[in-house]
Amino acid sequence: MKPVKVGICGLGTVGSGSFNILLKNAEEITRRVGRSIVIEQVGARRGNDACDTTGINVTRDIFDVVNNPEIDIVLELIGGTSVAKELVMTALENGKHVVTANKALIAEHGNEIFAKAQEKGVIVAFEAAVAGGIPIIKAVREGLSANRIDWLAGIINGTGNFILTEMSEKQRNFDDVLAEAQALGYAEADPTFDVEGIDAAHKLTILASIAFGIPLQFEKTYTEGISRVTAEDVAFADELGYAVKHLGIARRTKLGIELRVHPTLIARKHLLASVNGVMNAIMVQGDAVGPTLTYGAGAGALPTGSSVVADVIDVARTLTADPTNRVPHLAFQADALSDVEVLPVEEIECGFFLNMTIQDRAGVLANITQILSNNGISIESLIQREREGSELVPLVVMTHEVKERNMNAAIAAIEALPDVAGSVQRIRVENLA
Amino acid sequence: MKPVKVGICGLGTVGSGSFNILLKNAEEITRRVGRSIVIEQVGARRGNDACDTTGINVTRDIFDVVNNPEIDIVLELIGGTSVAKELVMTALENGKHVVTANKALIAEHGNEIFAKAQEKGVIVAFEAAVAGGIPIIKAVREGLSANRIDWLAGIINGTGNFILTEMSEKQRNFDDVLAEAQALGYAEADPTFDVEGIDAAHKLTILASIAFGIPLQFEKTYTEGISRVTAEDVAFADELGYAVKHLGIARRTKLGIELRVHPTLIARKHLLASVNGVMNAIMVQGDAVGPTLTYGAGAGALPTGSSVVADVIDVARTLTADPTNRVPHLAFQADALSDVEVLPVEEIECGFFLNMTIQDRAGVLANITQILSNNGISIESLIQREREGSELVPLVVMTHEVKERNMNAAIAAIEALPDVAGSVQRIRVENLA
Repeated sequence: MKPVKVGICGLGTVGSGSFNILLKNAEEITRRVGRSIVIEQVGARRGNDACDTTGINVTRDIFDVVNNPEIDIVLELIGGTSVAKELVMTALENGKHVVTANKALIAEHGNEIFAKAQEKGVIVAFEAAVAGGIPIIKAVREGLSANRIDWLAGIINGTGNFILTEMSEKQRNFDDVLAEAQALGYAEADPTFDVEGIDAAHKLTILASIAFGIPLQFEKTYTEGISRVTAEDVAFADELGYAVKHLGIARRTKLGIELRVHPTLIARKHLLASVNGVMNAIMVQGDAVGPTLTYGAGAGALPTGSSVVADVIDVARTLTADPTNRVPHLAFQADALSDVEVLPVEEIECGFFLNMTIQDRAGVLANITQILSNNGISIESLIQREREGSELVPLVVMTHEVKERNMNAAIAAIEALPDVAGSVQRIRVENLA
Repeated sequence: MKPVKVGICGLGTVGSGSFNILLKNAEEITRRVGRSIVIEQVGARRGNDACDTTGINVTRDIFDVVNNPEIDIVLELIGGTSVAKELVMTALENGKHVVTANKALIAEHGNEIFAKAQEKGVIVAFEAAVAGGIPIIKAVREGLSANRIDWLAGIINGTGNFILTEMSEKQRNFDDVLAEAQALGYAEADPTFDVEGIDAAHKLTILASIAFGIPLQFEKTYTEGISRVTAEDVAFADELGYAVKHLGIARRTKLGIELRVHPTLIARKHLLASVNGVMNAIMVQGDAVGPTLTYGAGAGALPTGSSVVADVIDVARTLTADPTNRVPHLAFQADALSDVEVLPVEEIECGFFLNMTIQDRAGVLANITQILSNNGISIESLIQREREGSELVPLVVMTHEVKERNMNAAIAAIEALPDVAGSVQRIRVENLA
């Protein structure tokens, strides 16, 4: 068979990684695919050194790539959502298959992009958009296709996991670790996307759609970052036998779909609690398979490039397949997506870890436990500490499962007590079993 | 599109699981595939209760199923290697696609079966043959297809892992736990396949072929079971910070391929050490992605059925694809398999944990360490214990990496010492990093 011709748009981290894998593993890839995959053209502000030695055509205008009639598959690796969207839509309009690592683009504009791809009979592959090198899209969409997926939960932002791991292992503060993460290149100069959960919400949006067969609904994902988690929270959680992890959770319930990203306490013995540093892992619970977990590098040039190139190979194999009989973009046929409601966060039930500062005075604890009880909240465990030379002491309460709405009412009432100083910190608790 | 018609041969554990999933999740499956998948006929000694209520045709002769002209895909779920092989070969001869959960059949006769499938332009899918519900075949063959796989290591026998977990957590003996595993239905009346590593060797053989692109070579797999591991070994390993796990390991080295199943010490902090009970997990190291791990149920009706039905869905999607452009059976094109040598175990290097009983007498330790040194073996750690009222004491030695050939020579010399009682227990040590 004749070679498959690829055009790469963007030679940043992921673009360079994909470029280097396609060159380095060219022989192994040909052994697998039965035809070679060649880089026909690169569109980038600057070339990769290997472009010179290999004589690959480099253009400064990325739109040259999507308009190049020789190219079968366009790799959109420029990031962002404006130019990237125009680039992808033009590629699709030109009848080209697209492979992208762009989680924001898929989460925010995927419905429109997939509709266009379907209209043109081409594929948009996006394994690299979620959890870097972990083939989780393939696992959920194909490997577990016999299942009705009940829920999934993942550590899907390496920066956040690095920060929480350091806070836990070395009793460091958030700001301190964030500064180190920036110095190490794990976090951007503007860390908002990572630490405020937006990046994780993009990935969760995609995972939920392929798990449940629902349209992409990024705007309905409840998103809370880790920037308010304190070293004290982490230490108290540890004392109670829990790790604090930043999780994306999607769950199918009788009332609707839960779609939420937030710091979460999980038991130390849970496998996800052992996923440390910049690594990612996703747990998926299917009705037939039970619990599964997939672990690996969630970012980086070569791991993310691994997923980009795997997608290229997949697309190469479907070039000669019936377009109506492919794996659908969102795992379910486009006309079979369901419009199950995404639940507002107030309707979600989980356990809570509350951390507050109170006056060390008779009756305060009684008032607080009375408020919890009035709101139907039962206590699982409680830590109250003396603090040398201070009348303000920490109080930590772990509750059983309760609807967020009730917890909101209880927290408002607790914060209104004269003997409670400042606001009540809340971190949700999940057992994931 | 018209329905895909499936014939199920065998209604044991996996057959019933697959049958029940196809019925229960029929609607979800149709939403995914865009056409329904129906059970046209079942071949089994006895029916499933649901056969009666659903009116599915049940035959006592499984060969009726492979000769039924209505059937597109045959599910071989009878197990064993003689009738199963004849059944599969007949199905292929009749131009039918086959899905099987039969690890022994694939590991021992896969080369011949795949050649026939290729000749007839049909698929033999075998996700369920390795690690039950974990989609590890798909992960290695497709999800990590951009990589040159360096090595893989897995806990791929749930019975063995259950036994070792109980031995570790409750300081129990092998025989005692085996009896419980048999009572619980985790182990067969004849536990040889599980505890002597044959089942794991079948699975490792398959994994190694799809990882490295080599023919199936079950007969060259070094296979050692867990029946000689003692509670004392496990306790000493724990004291040194290690867990004892029964691993299948396949590694590509400059000298050839390592292919081996044996009890293995791995560091307690390693993710594989946290995989307990009947669960399975496989770690795969690719040159681009780095380390990955996939975890899930390695056996059972519904988890294994999950993989069988996922394969059925995959085959349904390729029914209208170009047969020359599919994912190859062994991940690499049949004419591109490489004949890299499988190394004899004597050529393999790893660390060793040695447990022996010696006379508590001056000079014995000096003799032993001298023998190790003479064979180029350096010691990493050592435990020697007093034993109340006995002149025989245990000696445990952990060594750095050394070729098995040298270790054999050292152990023979140590066992020949008059002050060493009985034989020296050896368990290999891996860092898997």
